[in-house]
Amino acid sequence: MANLILVLLLASLCSVPVHALQQLRFDKKGEFRILQVADMHYANGKTTPCLDVLPQQVASCTDLNTTAFIRRLILAEKPHLIVFTGDNIFGFDTTNPVKSMNAAFAPAISSNIPWAAVLGNHDQESILSREGVMKYIVGMKNTLSELNPPEVHEIDGYGNYNLEVHGVEDSRLVNKSLLNLYFLDSGDYSKVPSIPGYDWIKPSQQLWFQHTSTKLQRAYMNKPEAQISPAPGLVYFHIPLPEYASFDSSNFTGVKQEGISSASINSGFFATMAEAGDVKAVFTGHDHVNDFCGYLTGIHLCYAGGFGYHAYGQAGWSRRTRMVVASLEKTDKGVWGDVKSIKTWKRLDDEHLTAIDAQVLWSKMGGRRKKQIGRL
Amino acid sequence: MANLILVLLLASLCSVPVHALQQLRFDKKGEFRILQVADMHYANGKTTPCLDVLPQQVASCTDLNTTAFIRRLILAEKPHLIVFTGDNIFGFDTTNPVKSMNAAFAPAISSNIPWAAVLGNHDQESILSREGVMKYIVGMKNTLSELNPPEVHEIDGYGNYNLEVHGVEDSRLVNKSLLNLYFLDSGDYSKVPSIPGYDWIKPSQQLWFQHTSTKLQRAYMNKPEAQISPAPGLVYFHIPLPEYASFDSSNFTGVKQEGISSASINSGFFATMAEAGDVKAVFTGHDHVNDFCGYLTGIHLCYAGGFGYHAYGQAGWSRRTRMVVASLEKTDKGVWGDVKSIKTWKRLDDEHLTAIDAQVLWSKMGGRRKKQIGRL
Repeated sequence: MANLILVLLLASLCSVPVHALQQLRFDKKGEFRILQVADMHYANGKTTPCLDVLPQQVASCTDLNTTAFIRRLILAEKPHLIVFTGDNIFGFDTTNPVKSMNAAFAPAISSNIPWAAVLGNHDQESILSREGVMKYIVGMKNTLSELNPPEVHEIDGYGNYNLEVHGVEDSRLVNKSLLNLYFLDSGDYSKVPSIPGYDWIKPSQQLWFQHTSTKLQRAYMNKPEAQISPAPGLVYFHIPLPEYASFDSSNFTGVKQEGISSASINSGFFATMAEAGDVKAVFTGHDHVNDFCGYLTGIHLCYAGGFGYHAYGQAGWSRRTRMVVASLEKTDKGVWGDVKSIKTWKRLDDEHLTAIDAQVLWSKMGGRRKKQIGRL
Repeated sequence: MANLILVLLLASLCSVPVHALQQLRFDKKGEFRILQVADMHYANGKTTPCLDVLPQQVASCTDLNTTAFIRRLILAEKPHLIVFTGDNIFGFDTTNPVKSMNAAFAPAISSNIPWAAVLGNHDQESILSREGVMKYIVGMKNTLSELNPPEVHEIDGYGNYNLEVHGVEDSRLVNKSLLNLYFLDSGDYSKVPSIPGYDWIKPSQQLWFQHTSTKLQRAYMNKPEAQISPAPGLVYFHIPLPEYASFDSSNFTGVKQEGISSASINSGFFATMAEAGDVKAVFTGHDHVNDFCGYLTGIHLCYAGGFGYHAYGQAGWSRRTRMVVASLEKTDKGVWGDVKSIKTWKRLDDEHLTAIDAQVLWSKMGGRRKKQIGRL
């Protein structure tokens, strides 16, 4: 009988979503570190060749190079969360999407670091639909991904959810979300015959985002431990917004080596985020050889740069990742406060995992500082 | 007792909205005619001077010229519906907004033609809020305006609603909506400090539009009298969309004599309409000396041109209005069918109410024809 109870208890524990057991929070140093992996394009592992690498790399390069790059980054950056921003697998070339996903997310899973994923435009190009892919992902080990917000009756896409990052354990803000992460499904391709190209974030998703942001802001600025301004928010999805085309090299950090492959019409998510007021930065993938961050009316719009080796790229231009680190303020009394700054940099897949383009995306005092932040 | 019942019956009839008693429908000639009045800017009547008129007009020109223009148009065009697309009163100059509204809408009311109004950015600039102005409007005689859709729990703005235009009386489509009219509140000014300028149509409004369009399309294409494609939709609001800036004289009909004063960011309503698939044309005001219609991926974007005399304009460039006429198809058997074409033209406030820029916005056969439609 005692055994049966134990089994039932374990079974019930196993059905509890990971995030209920594992609340994201700032670490003892007051930091929260996010590694963004964009466009792995994982297919079948060691039999899948690399695209756009140097002639001397061709012979030995496969999907396993993508895997090795994540492993090295995890060791080097010690992230608290790994975010996969879509085209995680390249459905078109995969012989078994479940195997591809198992292999693609394996480094995250085996590291025991929580991870979250959204869909790109290629994930569903095998035998699994977008719903099928996202349903499989949410059942994987250590993931905080969700299919969709349970409280919303109707929402477009699969993989719209948010995560809260709470204060340091045993600190006064232990039960407040000091940093909010939003994840959205930016779709695949337009379903409107007169509008060619990529899909877009729909009104239903924007309304969910708006409600969620409002709710989080209200909770943060109300007792207990009422704060005076909203907690910063970061937004992750796959396809860049049309507003990414607002920049040139005079007003961004990084490079733009191809056009902005946004939807061909503007569905207004930038306006919705600007109105919400808490979002400080947006992080997408999709355009593999763009890796810039540009700043527009209060919000940084950032690419990660292409990560995966079975994805188009540019031979000799290293695959890369984007790190984001939010840091808490420590008051004179040695007590952890709210978020003081949000910094970002990229890491290249070279011998030293070279860090480049470090910048402050947001700081509590300045709202935003454009200057570079010296050595890491 | 019988008297009491009669009184109660009358009272209950009076509380029924006009549109419940008065279903819009195509006339016996298979036509539905809409007169759009943009930017009356009505203030205090005969003591309110005209702006931007010729020197010889200055002395005798007041708000009453605006009134006279509507009266003449009603006689000439015999519309079935008059749509006021905002800045109906110029709140800043009015001494009594109720009096201003009574006077501004008086020609519509006394004509006994149903009318509908939305708000602009100036209507609330007196002692009445936007809610107050719209609440007053919906209580006026013969109006089909509504405060907001009763079935929606939460929506931004005041004056978001839709109207159905049913088939000819005693025809087989008498109970179907063959033409759908959508009205939205495009707001006044941005509430986001980092985004200057005009307001925009929000996700909550777009979701309502999307749901309404889906519901109407389903009803139209289902039994009884199931149709094979959605009924055309026309959309009316005040502030033009950013997409109005897509055109130049090579691809529009009319003139562009000033910049497009849309919101400075794109809130995506064009994308939402394009996705819905039923909208054939959008009609706004706001920019008084632009009066063009341009065509973008399936939807005509049209200005009416400035109507009111206490509104900025251009001396010597006539105040004007936009007419839209939808016509039904008559089958070989002499039975009225669905909408065959939607035409538009403008009328100038000159001696002959000259009609200009006639064009077919949409036709059942061609989807759209750009060619001019000869003499009226």
